Amino acid sequence: MDSYFKHHVFFCCNQRPAPDQSCAALGANELQAYAKQRINALGLNGKGSIRINKAGCLGRCDEGPVLVVYPEGVWYRFVDESDIDEIISEHLQNGRPVERLKL
Amino acid sequence: MDSYFKHHVFFCCNQRPAPDQSCAALGANELQAYAKQRINALGLNGKGSIRINKAGCLGRCDEGPVLVVYPEGVWYRFVDESDIDEIISEHLQNGRPVERLKL
Repeated sequence: MDSYFKHHVFFCCNQRPAPDQSCAALGANELQAYAKQRINALGLNGKGSIRINKAGCLGRCDEGPVLVVYPEGVWYRFVDESDIDEIISEHLQNGRPVERLKL
Repeated sequence: MDSYFKHHVFFCCNQRPAPDQSCAALGANELQAYAKQRINALGLNGKGSIRINKAGCLGRCDEGPVLVVYPEGVWYRFVDESDIDEIISEHLQNGRPVERLKL
């Protein structure tokens, strides 16, 4: 498939009122910003390459924080910057989905 | 591909200060809400079916308002509710991308 972005990554950044679980309450915004900054620093952002986006609720609150990578439709649960680093280096740069983080 | 959602639709809902073009200034939020309400009314929302999401800037401001349908990676420019109706009935319900609205 000739995709506008090779990998288009959406972070769920939804905030629900406590005590409901929500991705934003678990650091999604900060880790989305971290991912975006890393991709920019690597020069991997833009058309034909990678885009890191915020999204509204992706509907998998109980599994959060979650992100999805399209067009391949691979979903991840991540906890910290090292998880993001691994998704970037393994999946986004080398096309190898990170099995231990997949939903 | 066994996708969590059969069609996952992301509307760019970014707002930039005037005079810059932005999707939100061209009705993206209202038309995203309309699409979500239509999909719900049709009973097409949920796992294995369709999800309508808001997203941050999708990086195609000059072509906006835009949405993208994954996993197929089809991008559209839309203007009004009739465009959304056509994307729903043709593409999302019947798998026929709407050529006249494609980017």
